[in-house]
Amino acid sequence: MRIEVVNTGSELLLGKVINTHVAYFGQELFKIGLRIDRQTTIPDGGVIGSMMTEAFPRCDALLVTGGLGPTSDDITREVVAALLGRALVLDEGILETIRTMFRVRGLTSSPTNDRQAMVPVGATVLPNPYGTAPGLYLPADLAVGSPHIFLLPGPPRELKPMFQVEVLPRLAEFSGGTAPVWQNFRIYGVGESALATALEPEFGAIVDLEVGYCARLGEVDLRLIGSAASVELASKKVRASFPEDIATESEDALSSVIVDLLKQRGETVATAESCTGGAIASAITDASGSSAVFSESYIVYANAAKTKLVGVAPGLLAEHGAVSEAVVRAMAEGCLERSGADHAIAVSGIAGPDGGSEEKPVGTVWLAIASRGNETFAKRFFYPSDRASFKIRTTRQALDQLRRRLRGFALA
Amino acid sequence: MRIEVVNTGSELLLGKVINTHVAYFGQELFKIGLRIDRQTTIPDGGVIGSMMTEAFPRCDALLVTGGLGPTSDDITREVVAALLGRALVLDEGILETIRTMFRVRGLTSSPTNDRQAMVPVGATVLPNPYGTAPGLYLPADLAVGSPHIFLLPGPPRELKPMFQVEVLPRLAEFSGGTAPVWQNFRIYGVGESALATALEPEFGAIVDLEVGYCARLGEVDLRLIGSAASVELASKKVRASFPEDIATESEDALSSVIVDLLKQRGETVATAESCTGGAIASAITDASGSSAVFSESYIVYANAAKTKLVGVAPGLLAEHGAVSEAVVRAMAEGCLERSGADHAIAVSGIAGPDGGSEEKPVGTVWLAIASRGNETFAKRFFYPSDRASFKIRTTRQALDQLRRRLRGFALA
Repeated sequence: MRIEVVNTGSELLLGKVINTHVAYFGQELFKIGLRIDRQTTIPDGGVIGSMMTEAFPRCDALLVTGGLGPTSDDITREVVAALLGRALVLDEGILETIRTMFRVRGLTSSPTNDRQAMVPVGATVLPNPYGTAPGLYLPADLAVGSPHIFLLPGPPRELKPMFQVEVLPRLAEFSGGTAPVWQNFRIYGVGESALATALEPEFGAIVDLEVGYCARLGEVDLRLIGSAASVELASKKVRASFPEDIATESEDALSSVIVDLLKQRGETVATAESCTGGAIASAITDASGSSAVFSESYIVYANAAKTKLVGVAPGLLAEHGAVSEAVVRAMAEGCLERSGADHAIAVSGIAGPDGGSEEKPVGTVWLAIASRGNETFAKRFFYPSDRASFKIRTTRQALDQLRRRLRGFALA
Repeated sequence: MRIEVVNTGSELLLGKVINTHVAYFGQELFKIGLRIDRQTTIPDGGVIGSMMTEAFPRCDALLVTGGLGPTSDDITREVVAALLGRALVLDEGILETIRTMFRVRGLTSSPTNDRQAMVPVGATVLPNPYGTAPGLYLPADLAVGSPHIFLLPGPPRELKPMFQVEVLPRLAEFSGGTAPVWQNFRIYGVGESALATALEPEFGAIVDLEVGYCARLGEVDLRLIGSAASVELASKKVRASFPEDIATESEDALSSVIVDLLKQRGETVATAESCTGGAIASAITDASGSSAVFSESYIVYANAAKTKLVGVAPGLLAEHGAVSEAVVRAMAEGCLERSGADHAIAVSGIAGPDGGSEEKPVGTVWLAIASRGNETFAKRFFYPSDRASFKIRTTRQALDQLRRRLRGFALA
């Protein structure tokens, strides 16, 4: 089955937004044995017409994103209707959904929004629980020579659920494809090249195995694809090589892993955060059900706050400075005591761009984990980069060290 | 000048790698007044030939990435030579560079690497200080009908320096382009469709104006591009229509706007966060220099924490529940008092997926802003969606309400 993707959006070509749709589609289609043959990005506006005419004979399914919104540059719906020679008719169901969505939020729907309720004759409406623009599916039309066409919203939060629920099952049915066997490992504390160096000799003798690495800041996904036997054999080698570094054999977030482990143990966690400004606590509470294991935390940005909220002695701050082993240990232990939690995470570092020194350059961060009945762990890390990357890496490092403690592994 | 980009690479279509080249090219080209008219991704291998033939008549410059490597699926060089009717000749300079690069790394260059030294007659070699594959530039050829062609390496760390040094200056010269006038407005509290409804009649009479909207969760960028006079005229209309909703006329983050406003006023802010779990404080501290306006904050997830850390009376919690106007007001006022800050943000809501009720469904959130010398503002919002979106919308709403207070506008 030949699949083509067309992304509309001037913001993509102007570089205001990075196109993540293609990678998402590619990954998801692969799971049902399909792949994208060609992907094109075009600006908003009239080009969509000639683009689709050009793509029709090349593919069996055409996925179009964007151009379904309420503004004047959103014309995909009208263009497709014209190309297929279909009238646009008002869909009362969509109209009602749009108006309800506005009403619920205390807003009034405008006539420009009502345009989103116009549907080409013969199209199936694909519900959009996360936005006003529904998707549309137009079956292949032999008379016009058009492939199966899916018109999908641009925003990822609207697109992804619709792709899962409405697009993938239809494409799987059309193609009769079978999903390849695959296994993901989400790994912390080991870099992509170190993983590859260790594992590729092990994988060498395994036939029918495709290995993919996807490295993000402080986190690597290792994906094995192939026959059931090959994937199982390779998985055993991964588990044997990195028994403590695999946080999950799924694509679950580290925060969910932590919350599940804490729930199993009936324990709680609190944080005392300086340079991350609450990002670690926020990550923990990203996991649904986190209220069972998380009650309170302290953001202690200023030195005085470290003393006031988690009892760090002023003398310690004066002697060692806020970014130091002594202070971060005191923060973690004070957090444990004040919060009454079973585990406490503390971080203090220099996110930059200012505030660095020769001894403590920008990117320096001290992390401590204090737990009831354990030695407090403290270690210095160095993430010289922009503030956002620094915070993400520090947050992942902190959660991963807690994961190691909860699993009974040595902290690293 | 019409510019087309072709990215070759099966890994892009399989979703192993996100294509960041397009956004990079788009941003850099825009600075010299150029833009990408179309971008296409194709797999490694033979398709590159028909793709280029198809693109030749559509563009004045064709930028191709990938396919210059040493392996058997890297055939861009050979395909281009064939299309243009040029012989491939060995370039001794490249060969020497490749061999030296291997020698320096203690490796031996293989014959497959030597293929990278073959160059079509008439091509200019674009040096690659960061890898073995040089780029190639082939000037437009009227006889063949080919545009200016740039063959560039795939890896970003090789591509970007080559694009800056070898590609951008040539394109600037060919186009004689000048940077276009453009203006961004980052707007809160007004949806994309309401903006369009209000502004499009105003813009109707303005010639040479391109209007783009990019809506994210609770945030819209309105972009005006055109002649200096048109952009100025349209900008005046935007400012007059939404004087209080424009947070910035740049692409700065809302947190930077807040931190700058607080610095100007010599004031500070603190947060008391339940459902956002620290996300608001983390957003504030994303802004460089935030330590001047931010000292401490409280994450009060559990009811007991609301009492302990910001002094909410247990009776108030029992009577109204944690997600209520009374409690969120008490949280904000308690936060103001305990932190000593000039402004306090408090939120309490139901992020879901569990914990909703008929009266307070998932997505309900109460927000309060308390400031010294002002009435405390409190309002209920409703963001029924996934936890991540709920947190982002709530965070943006909270920061935007604080922005309005700092600018002296009525809270909305």
